[in-house]
Amino acid sequence: MPVASSKVRVRYAETDKMGVAYHANYFVWFEVARCDLLRVFGETYRNLEAEGIYLPVVEAHCKFVSPARYDDQLNITTKANLKSQVRVEFSYKLERDKDHHLLATGRTIHASTDTHGKPQRLPKRLHTLLT
Amino acid sequence: MPVASSKVRVRYAETDKMGVAYHANYFVWFEVARCDLLRVFGETYRNLEAEGIYLPVVEAHCKFVSPARYDDQLNITTKANLKSQVRVEFSYKLERDKDHHLLATGRTIHASTDTHGKPQRLPKRLHTLLT
Amino acid sequence: MPVASSKVRVRYAETDKMGVAYHANYFVWFEVARCDLLRVFGETYRNLEAEGIYLPVVEAHCKFVSPARYDDQLNITTKANLKSQVRVEFSYKLERDKDHHLLATGRTIHASTDTHGKPQRLPKRLHTLLT
Amino acid sequence: MPVASSKVRVRYAETDKMGVAYHANYFVWFEVARCDLLRVFGETYRNLEAEGIYLPVVEAHCKFVSPARYDDQLNITTKANLKSQVRVEFSYKLERDKDHHLLATGRTIHASTDTHGKPQRLPKRLHTLLT
Repeated sequence: MPVASSKVRVRYAETDKMGVAYHANYFVWFEVARCDLLRVFGETYRNLEAEGIYLPVVEAHCKFVSPARYDDQLNITTKANLKSQVRVEFSYKLERDKDHHLLATGRTIHASTDTHGKPQRLPKRLHTLLT
Repeated sequence: MPVASSKVRVRYAETDKMGVAYHANYFVWFEVARCDLLRVFGETYRNLEAEGIYLPVVEAHCKFVSPARYDDQLNITTKANLKSQVRVEFSYKLERDKDHHLLATGRTIHASTDTHGKPQRLPKRLHTLLT
Repeated sequence: MPVASSKVRVRYAETDKMGVAYHANYFVWFEVARCDLLRVFGETYRNLEAEGIYLPVVEAHCKFVSPARYDDQLNITTKANLKSQVRVEFSYKLERDKDHHLLATGRTIHASTDTHGKPQRLPKRLHTLLT
Repeated sequence: MPVASSKVRVRYAETDKMGVAYHANYFVWFEVARCDLLRVFGETYRNLEAEGIYLPVVEAHCKFVSPARYDDQLNITTKANLKSQVRVEFSYKLERDKDHHLLATGRTIHASTDTHGKPQRLPKRLHTLLT
C-alpha cells in the first residue's frame, strides 16, 4: 500500500477568530498531501487530468483532535487504498511536525471519471501503483 | 428538533478547474447554515462567543452527490441534535434551489468549550433550544 | 454609469486570528458585488461565460480603512466604468450595513477575452449597458 | 533593503472554473512570501504577534500579468521598505519557477499596531532589519 508524507505550514489566511486553523482548510491540506503521494510514485494529478482522468471527491471525513495553529509546520502521512475499479480512498494522519502531536485524521473517497463526470476505470498503471 | 433553511449562492472563488464548486467549500456553507439555524432561534454564534461559549468542530463529514456549479442558488436544510451536555451535532441537506436536486448531505459535530478550549456545559437556554 | 449595491455577511471562515476578516476575502466580496451589478442590469456573468465572454481580473486594489468583523452585514456599492473596448473597471465602496461605517474602498480592472484568454471586444449590449 | 524569495505550489483549491488560479489567492501567497522574508532575517510574524506587534494590511495591490496554473511551482521575490515609524511596504514579484515567466507584481502596505489596532512604533530591531 503506497504511503507518502507531506509538509504544510499553516498560513495566516487559514486561521480564524478562534485563533486556530479553520476546519475546512484541513481538506485543502489533504488535497496537497494526496497529490504529493501521486508525485512520489512518479505521477502528477495535473498529468492525470491532461490525460482525461479526473478524481473528484465523493466523500470526505475528518476528526479534529487538537488545533493546528498559525505557522505550525504540519506533517501529513497519506495512504491510498483502491476500493474498486472506479473508487480510491485516501486516508490521512496530520501531526504537528516538531513534536509529532496528533492533530487530525481524515479520509476522502474519490470517483474515477472522464472529463464529463462519467465513471471511468482507473488506468492500469494507477491500478498497479495503488495496490 | 430545530430545523432551518439557508440560501447560499456559489461564488466564482469557490469553483475549481473542474468547473464545479471545490469540495472543501461545502463545509463553509455548512457553517453559514448552522449559524442561520441559531439565528432563527433568536441566538447568534457571535453572541455565544461574546459570552465565552465556543462550538469548535470536532468532526466533519460530507457526501458529495452531484456537483454545485458557479452561480447556483443553493438551499441548505439544517437540523441540530444534542448529543450530550458538551456535544451538538448539526446535519445538512444541500439542494440546488431551482429544482430541489440533491447535491450533498453532511454533518458536523461540535464540542462546547470555553475560550481556552476546555469542555464546558452548553448553557441551559441552548440545551432547551436544541431539544 | 451603472451602480448597484450588494449585501454580504462575514463568514467565520473569512476571519483570521487577528479576530477580523482576512484582507484577501475583500476581493471575493468584490466579485460577489460586481456579479450583482451585472444581475441588476439583466445579465449574469455565468451567461457571459456561456457565450464565450470572459472578464479575468488584470489588476486589483483595495484600501482597508476599518476592519470587518465576523457576522457583520456588509453593504457594497459597485460602479462600472468602461475604460476601452476591451477593458472594464469596477469600483467598490464597502460599508458596515448597520451604521454605514466605511470599511474599505477598492477597484478591479478586467480584460475582455475569449475562452483562450485572447482579447475580445466587449459585446455591444454590454458596451451600452456599462456606459 | 532586505530581499527574500519563496516557493509556493498552486493548489487545486486555489484554481477557479477559468482553469487558472483565482486572483484573490495571490494575496495569500504574498502573505506567505513576506513571512518568509521575516524568517530569513531571524524573525517570525508569529513571534511578533506574541510580543504584541501586529502588522495588519492597510492597502493591497496586484497586477496580474499572466495566469498561474494548477500545480505550477511559483517563485516570489519579496522586498521590504520602511515607509515610516508605523508603516512598512512589501513588494512582490511572482514568477513561474521553471522558466522565470513573470506572472504578477504586487505590493501591500502594513500598519504597525498593538493588539487593539492602535498605531505603535515598529520595534527598533525591526526598524534596523527593514532598512
